[in-house]
Amino acid sequence: MSELFMNQSELEALTATFVDEGTLLPVVVQDEASKEVLMLAYLSREALELSLSTGRATYYSRSRGEIWVKGESSGNRQWIRSVSFDCDSDAVLFLVHQEGVACHTGERSCFHHKIT
Amino acid sequence: MSELFMNQSELEALTATFVDEGTLLPVVVQDEASKEVLMLAYLSREALELSLSTGRATYYSRSRGEIWVKGESSGNRQWIRSVSFDCDSDAVLFLVHQEGVACHTGERSCFHHKIT
Repeated sequence: MSELFMNQSELEALTATFVDEGTLLPVVVQDEASKEVLMLAYLSREALELSLSTGRATYYSRSRGEIWVKGESSGNRQWIRSVSFDCDSDAVLFLVHQEGVACHTGERSCFHHKIT
Repeated sequence: MSELFMNQSELEALTATFVDEGTLLPVVVQDEASKEVLMLAYLSREALELSLSTGRATYYSRSRGEIWVKGESSGNRQWIRSVSFDCDSDAVLFLVHQEGVACHTGERSCFHHKIT
């Protein structure tokens, strides 16, 4: 995991390449081991920088309008194993090691309302 | 797969529950077999109804402002195996059978720009 950690100038260059100031990008969060899709969240540039510099998944809460370190209060932390951007550079994929569960309802994944 | 197909009134009730007219929801598209995350796309209510009624992944293109049947021109069709909503009902997960590749660049997945 240590290769995720970058110095400040590397981080700033990288995140500025992908994320405009004020833009929010959707990030798909996938369990590295089981490959289960755990949740969909949003990244601001600052949230991406914090995720990359700390190795802990950090998002932007659209409802609260603030940065949100996943698991800060619940203890259900996510440790980032890899970060990928898509072909249009408008979506991100985090592979994570999930402590506990991803969903605030207690389910492992937020995607537990299956239609069929 | 046949249990995905619904009659028109079932479809309308279901999609209206999840998707307001005019809203676009992000949809994570995952390969049913390999569990690879293939792409992130967007669904309008009509695109979700078409996906559920035809079994073929159908999205809303934000850049072109129109409904888009995946693989219509490329032949890289996606056949929907299951549909799930997340705990906030503001994101969708499709498990699909992918014909060919998902990305217009020829890569299997759109998430092929790995940072680490």
